[in-house]
Amino acid sequence: MQTSIDPASIATLDQDDPLRSKRDAFVLPRDVIYLDGNSLGPMPKAALRELKIAAEREWAAGLIRSWNGAGWIDLPATLGDRIAHLIGAAPGETVVTDTTSINIYKAIHAGLNLRPGRSVVVAEGAAFPTDIYMTEGVASVRPDVRIRLEGVDAPHVEDLLSDDVAVVLMNHVDYRTGVLRDMAALTGRIHAAGAIAIWDLCHSAGVLKVDLNANGADFAVGCTYKYLNGGPGAPAFVFAARRHHSKLSQPLTGWWGHANPFAFDRSFRPGDGIRPMLCGTQPILSMRALVGALEVWDEVDLDQLREKSLGLTDLFIALLEEGCGQFGITLAAPRARAMRGSQVSFRHPHAYEIMQALIERGVIGDFRSPDYMRFGFAPLYLRYADVYTTAVILHDVLAHSSWRAARFANRGTVT
Amino acid sequence: MQTSIDPASIATLDQDDPLRSKRDAFVLPRDVIYLDGNSLGPMPKAALRELKIAAEREWAAGLIRSWNGAGWIDLPATLGDRIAHLIGAAPGETVVTDTTSINIYKAIHAGLNLRPGRSVVVAEGAAFPTDIYMTEGVASVRPDVRIRLEGVDAPHVEDLLSDDVAVVLMNHVDYRTGVLRDMAALTGRIHAAGAIAIWDLCHSAGVLKVDLNANGADFAVGCTYKYLNGGPGAPAFVFAARRHHSKLSQPLTGWWGHANPFAFDRSFRPGDGIRPMLCGTQPILSMRALVGALEVWDEVDLDQLREKSLGLTDLFIALLEEGCGQFGITLAAPRARAMRGSQVSFRHPHAYEIMQALIERGVIGDFRSPDYMRFGFAPLYLRYADVYTTAVILHDVLAHSSWRAARFANRGTVT
Repeated sequence: MQTSIDPASIATLDQDDPLRSKRDAFVLPRDVIYLDGNSLGPMPKAALRELKIAAEREWAAGLIRSWNGAGWIDLPATLGDRIAHLIGAAPGETVVTDTTSINIYKAIHAGLNLRPGRSVVVAEGAAFPTDIYMTEGVASVRPDVRIRLEGVDAPHVEDLLSDDVAVVLMNHVDYRTGVLRDMAALTGRIHAAGAIAIWDLCHSAGVLKVDLNANGADFAVGCTYKYLNGGPGAPAFVFAARRHHSKLSQPLTGWWGHANPFAFDRSFRPGDGIRPMLCGTQPILSMRALVGALEVWDEVDLDQLREKSLGLTDLFIALLEEGCGQFGITLAAPRARAMRGSQVSFRHPHAYEIMQALIERGVIGDFRSPDYMRFGFAPLYLRYADVYTTAVILHDVLAHSSWRAARFANRGTVT
Repeated sequence: MQTSIDPASIATLDQDDPLRSKRDAFVLPRDVIYLDGNSLGPMPKAALRELKIAAEREWAAGLIRSWNGAGWIDLPATLGDRIAHLIGAAPGETVVTDTTSINIYKAIHAGLNLRPGRSVVVAEGAAFPTDIYMTEGVASVRPDVRIRLEGVDAPHVEDLLSDDVAVVLMNHVDYRTGVLRDMAALTGRIHAAGAIAIWDLCHSAGVLKVDLNANGADFAVGCTYKYLNGGPGAPAFVFAARRHHSKLSQPLTGWWGHANPFAFDRSFRPGDGIRPMLCGTQPILSMRALVGALEVWDEVDLDQLREKSLGLTDLFIALLEEGCGQFGITLAAPRARAMRGSQVSFRHPHAYEIMQALIERGVIGDFRSPDYMRFGFAPLYLRYADVYTTAVILHDVLAHSSWRAARFANRGTVT
């Protein structure tokens, strides 16, 4: 591979990386370069430690007593508060509970309930599908609600902000292209139009300095199993700005959202604060792994994190455009740093087969329909050297067309 | 303690118990008699084994590849089918997903959607509260829906079956009193009235021979962390009878319920069979523990299970009424075997303090407001000798009023 980048400079970048010690906090298989942490983060050592404590000490030995004794009952709130600093929330504004899909459903309802008389929900046509599907689910039970999709009804979300819009649901970073939206500007326009802004942080929490309160966000949802490394399908989070707490309502009114779950009242009374966003009993083993996973974040400087993320993606874009451009790959990520998340996608007519060939060679990224090769760059455990090696291997796969022989695996992977 | 029961006969009961070897499948703390398996089942050894495999081999080493390679993506269906034989479902009628609360929400909506033109949901006023709260949640988004509660509007569910009733939500076993309902008779009456029957199996699955299809049930929900021993907050299950699958719809239309989740369609298309009851990405670590927990059930004869359950509760009732009746305890469970679940509650004005004193002595049951001492009897790991010892200790606590000195712990425990 011929590029203007001196391979010797790569080692210097790694030596000077202020986050380089964080890699030791993870269990990473040898012979794998893992560029799919935006789909499932690798296992932090502390997650395994906490999982064992949860099973052997808390469940097996503590039994029912651990609901209080080990703080299980408080995990949605304590985990939410530990995520707060990563997303710019104040204490008491975030809970970890249920799934991203279900939290979207709650947040849209809550937003509609804050804007009586308005009936339109704006969403992105290119959003991760479950965002759209859950919006359809809300509309299915509220016949007054209409959905407008960016890309179908208009090219930009802000062009859809008429005075009947109650809620706008947006992804902070696009799951396919990695485009980062301007949260401050968009939230400002949405508020100027009198609507509620819900941000999906699935592809930004844990790689960017997200600042929900500084940007005036109303609600946010996100998952903990991508860049937060909480484990497969770890419960999601939901944020509601404190100014909305006194009027917070959504229809999944389970007992965990009740003012006093153990009073066993015969009618629902919403709890204080963020509590009405809770519903039922949560999967504690998965949550306890997340407790360990979040330890890794305790001393991370989010400005350093973002700078390394941009450094890794800058390098990847430069190496691939210079070294592999002749093989028909096309950048599908923003070149401008300010518009870029922490992933880089390239398009190629044989993207699926090429990604399979990379995976066989130990470079794990993923494929996204119809022709995207998606590479996620998690600054806590990736090295600049990994980026360089990835480019060399991709060059080799493309130069020898070895993807033509790649196994056809199942196309489904969970983002 | 003076009773007509010969302590020597207890040992014989245990020796002759065909399920006695199952106790070895569990990790049980020494010096504890655990009568709270109806709140949180103890840890099966196989659950810990599977949890470690899931974390160390599947997550840490397999990474994203395990969604397909380790079958994570299929766990809702494969776990559902493993529970099927315990609840009388056919393959493909049950999935493990989300929480009981959320599955109740789905099932009520699905039932309403099967009965257009009818608008009443009948529920029990004495149901576990989340059942009522979720019913209120459904009504909050469907202004046409009205709720009728047994005990408020009429003494019996069947008295509420007018021709505007769409759905009836009932508990198979009452969480407080242990009363077992006649599923066949009630489902028959509900169907005769043209309504849909939803059964909450939280307190029956895993201690009774539940037979949903033989009794014509339409939907059922239940949890896996009580008698199924899946671990704290393990995901719940939901059953939908096959005859309803072609018309199955509910508003939590997340991508896991889509006909092809990886096609990334821009509009929801429900999947086949039971799939529309799924929503979002599930907590895999918690589900993998459940995989191990369900191994315990592979060779259990449900008739033997029920017979032992009744044997344990018969013995407990006899011992307490004969030995402790003079201390003001009152049986709050049915004496008739056919009406009894696998728990026995006694009432006492100081039920809370007495239960605390028992817990301090290593007998773990639980308190339910306002004055219930609830004792759950899980036949897989309890011995007749445990029942006898419990009675002796309770007698001692009552005879010496030692509950007056019991610590006041937090009243909240999760059922």
